[in-house]
Amino acid sequence: MPVLLDTSSPDFAAAFGAFLAMKREVAADVEAACRRIVDDVAGRGDAALIEATRRFDRLELDASKLRVSEDEIAQAVKACDPKTVAALELARERIESFHRRQLPKDERFTDALGVELGWRWSAIQAVGLYVPGGTAAYPSSVLMNAVPARVAGVDRVVMVVPSPDGKLNPLVLAAAHLAGVSEIYRVGGAQAIAALAYGTATIAPVFKIVGPGNAYVAAAKRLVFGKVGIDMIAGPSEVLVIADRSANPAWIAADLLAQAEHDANAQSILITDDPALAGDVARAVETQLSTLPRADIARASWQDFGGIIKVKAIEESVALADALAAEHLEIMTADPEGLAAKIRNAGAVFLGAHTPEAIGDYVGGSNHVLPTARSARFSSGLGVLDFMKRTSMLKCGPDQLRQLGPAAMALGHAEGLDAHSRSVGIRLNLP
Amino acid sequence: MPVLLDTSSPDFAAAFGAFLAMKREVAADVEAACRRIVDDVAGRGDAALIEATRRFDRLELDASKLRVSEDEIAQAVKACDPKTVAALELARERIESFHRRQLPKDERFTDALGVELGWRWSAIQAVGLYVPGGTAAYPSSVLMNAVPARVAGVDRVVMVVPSPDGKLNPLVLAAAHLAGVSEIYRVGGAQAIAALAYGTATIAPVFKIVGPGNAYVAAAKRLVFGKVGIDMIAGPSEVLVIADRSANPAWIAADLLAQAEHDANAQSILITDDPALAGDVARAVETQLSTLPRADIARASWQDFGGIIKVKAIEESVALADALAAEHLEIMTADPEGLAAKIRNAGAVFLGAHTPEAIGDYVGGSNHVLPTARSARFSSGLGVLDFMKRTSMLKCGPDQLRQLGPAAMALGHAEGLDAHSRSVGIRLNLP
Repeated sequence: MPVLLDTSSPDFAAAFGAFLAMKREVAADVEAACRRIVDDVAGRGDAALIEATRRFDRLELDASKLRVSEDEIAQAVKACDPKTVAALELARERIESFHRRQLPKDERFTDALGVELGWRWSAIQAVGLYVPGGTAAYPSSVLMNAVPARVAGVDRVVMVVPSPDGKLNPLVLAAAHLAGVSEIYRVGGAQAIAALAYGTATIAPVFKIVGPGNAYVAAAKRLVFGKVGIDMIAGPSEVLVIADRSANPAWIAADLLAQAEHDANAQSILITDDPALAGDVARAVETQLSTLPRADIARASWQDFGGIIKVKAIEESVALADALAAEHLEIMTADPEGLAAKIRNAGAVFLGAHTPEAIGDYVGGSNHVLPTARSARFSSGLGVLDFMKRTSMLKCGPDQLRQLGPAAMALGHAEGLDAHSRSVGIRLNLP
Repeated sequence: MPVLLDTSSPDFAAAFGAFLAMKREVAADVEAACRRIVDDVAGRGDAALIEATRRFDRLELDASKLRVSEDEIAQAVKACDPKTVAALELARERIESFHRRQLPKDERFTDALGVELGWRWSAIQAVGLYVPGGTAAYPSSVLMNAVPARVAGVDRVVMVVPSPDGKLNPLVLAAAHLAGVSEIYRVGGAQAIAALAYGTATIAPVFKIVGPGNAYVAAAKRLVFGKVGIDMIAGPSEVLVIADRSANPAWIAADLLAQAEHDANAQSILITDDPALAGDVARAVETQLSTLPRADIARASWQDFGGIIKVKAIEESVALADALAAEHLEIMTADPEGLAAKIRNAGAVFLGAHTPEAIGDYVGGSNHVLPTARSARFSSGLGVLDFMKRTSMLKCGPDQLRQLGPAAMALGHAEGLDAHSRSVGIRLNLP
């Protein structure tokens, strides 16, 4: 049974607090194991990478086979269903077009004193993209990571994808090909993260690593953070649906299950002011589960982490949504825009009854890599800015230095940093 | 002796590689100790925070004394030299004015299919600002962290600052006051980071933590990363000066020493095409060291980590600067703008002979919290965006769903996520 909450119940605050605190992340303690692998690859390079690949992926490689060949990529594209490739191509175009609008503008201005200030954006030169193998190998995620990197102007986008028992998902290679990524290595896990961060004889190091992975990948990314940049640590996915009596319960149920089928730790939540809708959705979920291929996963997620929250008025959902800070927020009410304008914490908002989250997962154009586990309170989905960095610019002439110098010197002295003061004073003939 | 390198030397590549790989970060293994402190504060709240403060800061507090009172703040402001307060006020105004230009614009557009897309920026609701105690307590850093947070529109900016033996730097409190920060707690170390991340009875939790700190603070930030957002992990500071014969060697020496005086692990580097200038700068450094209050620190930094790189032509400095990816880059050449345009990796660029980095540290207006240890290859200085997050928006009507739906369904099926496909199909009466 999903959790049923009602804001008019006297113990709502406590029950909602417990619901918020529910831990869905698997706290696998793999850090020590990861540290050994990372240190080994950092120290011994290809040899360690190849040994770890033999051990974890049951795959025998030599250094010359680490990289996926152009021919393999071409074969993979041919092996894919053309209809799927066409859908990937549509997705790629729409993702590219959306993300082009995120390209930031440089700034340069001269202030009243004549000081020239500003900043300049530039692409990160080399980025690594981790792609999970096995069942969680999603070609759509390849596009969502690689396309913004290309739009940003990253010179070198390197993909790593594990190939357990030698198997590679052709759609993943096809998506990489469509996104213009041709440097692909068949390695995964903590060893692939270490190879990207430290480099080996075969794999030149990158400056930032993005992309989702299992607990080992997440722990390894945390370990190399600082040496290279990393994106967020992805947790289990979640959706919050806010709906009033105008909404179709079967559509809501389908959306809740689309989230739940990802992972037994995924979370699907409905907030509604209509008790009848709440009941209808709960029943529709059960009906639809009976014919769903991934019913076991979806049922576990819905029963363990699902929730239906009844509110007295739909406005109550604003505060609840901000506290939940859902990765995905669907609003199916009479006035979705009005409600959305009041909600501050969400990774992405899907407005109205005809915007199921699955559109955003694939072909909407916005990014599906979004902050999970309430981190939308402090972070954003993946975008072009994640593949760029800003350099600030400052230029004074003698006049400007004369005007600003004394205050800088006063602060240098106050902070006990006399060489700071002197670097100004020496130019102004001030002691 | 600083390292002397020459690009015309046959072993330059190897020597430069070794120079780049030189480790300046102190690799204190404090993680286990930090984890105990963080877990203790997460579990026992104020009681653990108070015990750790007694132990590490030799300060006896009860919960009612954790917060610095309004009266104490007012007293601190009065105790400061008015000239220093005026300089802080000038700095605050200029930082505010610069950072206001970083406020991002929301985007909303309708594409050719009629799909509405865009994103919306909003401020993080609560942010914690760590301020080191003791000698590294810099009021300028309080402004550099707090002002962008205020400009972003953060509702609640909370400052923590350790008060070893009960001592607080009045200038730090004055800077907080000028920046509009009034919620200040006299705690520091890993225990303060844990209190900010998990909350205690006295300190409500925040969603992101910024600000520099010692090895314990850095390790604790790494541990709570994910639970809350964090800024970069700050390393020892560095400056790279690129200068030709047009530059004044004494000014360059003063700038190299302004960096070196921060920390024995700081790094100051000169690249020049003029052998005479290289010699003159080296001599000027020695001369100026003899009268510098923090000469011991500056000398250690210069001798252990300083460097002078001679190039055949100033254009060679572009590739070297990109590899060094310095936190601060000063360009004192005949055409600083031309050279700056070619360099991609730097935290901040200071153009021309009259822009010593100390101006940027205090009153230039740009932020002095900048990426260290070559991380300018993949990250930016602190700015308004660090205190905001982006929510993407997507809206389809029935027509748009009809056009995009089949491709989304194809990808859902291809990824084995049939409930995704169904959430689209159920709205279109498609199987």
